[in-house]
Amino acid sequence: MKFHTDYLTFQTSKREEFVLITDQVEQTVKTSGIREGMVLVSAMHITAAVYVNDAEDGLIEDIKEWLHGLAPDKDYRHHRTGEDNGSAHLKNLILHHQVILPVTNGKLDLGPWQQVYYAEFDGQRRKRVVLKVMGE
Amino acid sequence: MKFHTDYLTFQTSKREEFVLITDQVEQTVKTSGIREGMVLVSAMHITAAVYVNDAEDGLIEDIKEWLHGLAPDKDYRHHRTGEDNGSAHLKNLILHHQVILPVTNGKLDLGPWQQVYYAEFDGQRRKRVVLKVMGE
Amino acid sequence: MKFHTDYLTFQTSKREEFVLITDQVEQTVKTSGIREGMVLVSAMHITAAVYVNDAEDGLIEDIKEWLHGLAPDKDYRHHRTGEDNGSAHLKNLILHHQVILPVTNGKLDLGPWQQVYYAEFDGQRRKRVVLKVMGE
Repeated sequence: MKFHTDYLTFQTSKREEFVLITDQVEQTVKTSGIREGMVLVSAMHITAAVYVNDAEDGLIEDIKEWLHGLAPDKDYRHHRTGEDNGSAHLKNLILHHQVILPVTNGKLDLGPWQQVYYAEFDGQRRKRVVLKVMGE
Repeated sequence: MKFHTDYLTFQTSKREEFVLITDQVEQTVKTSGIREGMVLVSAMHITAAVYVNDAEDGLIEDIKEWLHGLAPDKDYRHHRTGEDNGSAHLKNLILHHQVILPVTNGKLDLGPWQQVYYAEFDGQRRKRVVLKVMGE
Repeated sequence: MKFHTDYLTFQTSKREEFVLITDQVEQTVKTSGIREGMVLVSAMHITAAVYVNDAEDGLIEDIKEWLHGLAPDKDYRHHRTGEDNGSAHLKNLILHHQVILPVTNGKLDLGPWQQVYYAEFDGQRRKRVVLKVMGE
């Protein structure tokens, strides 16, 4: 049994920004040499998410607007700590911070339109995603 | 270490339809011969979800109505591509597209009321779920 | 390859209560002797969630209030069965009932602010979370 762990680093130029990472995950799987198994893709922060959906610019804007409606900027209790990112925490919770992707024959076993995204909600600083491949 | 991969195929008669799949997942675990490990149950599409909750018809209707309120049909940017399924993408994101179920003593290690569902939001065409069992 | 399975038991004094469980998950990983792999942390009930976010009391109250807004108490169809916990089912679906945490060098490979929570939405009775560590 093999394990391979990688860390992706992000520093987005905008506070909210979605980054397509499918190729980087695929590359990590290739480097691992693992042919059968799973890869965990998990944000290491509590104001960012990892999700699988469509690489379509209109939809990405729809998702951002929709999340803004469900978790609006407002005066959260959390802001008493000096933070101003309460809505970013809630957006992390809606989208979930991780996915686990099946690896079959050395490749990500995804459907035809499935793409992996890192969704940053409180960026402009260094943040990380852990990738752990596990299999044979 | 063993791996076993199966694909379930769905073609629902209604556009939105929830399908109970616990028995099919259990059968795949049995076929795999794996006694200890985990099984990933993951939709291969971006307008369908996989979730664990109650097999109670009233609740299923509640979930559908609730999702409709959180992700209503409207004129999404995504529809400029010719699609009309923006709300289905958002419902996929709320429910999440996958679960990972523990396997203990050759069985799904679920609580007494936990059932596995495939939630279709843009059906009436062929779609798939990947099942990957991993363990010994 | 090793597997180690543990069950945490909760009986909260309030109907809705969030319990920090990072240390218990860390202890289970230590007991397992597994140095590389993953640990699944999964609620065995359909009215409770497991999530990763900040151990900050104000934010926890924000999350509870926000969930109450997204999944309010009302007369759900589910209540025709005699239950009164429809909103608890929906809150389980928003937060998701499980996380899978990477284990690296014998420790949970989490970011600096990531903490694991059990979120109870229909407590005051005995409920369980399954922990399954898998690795080497």
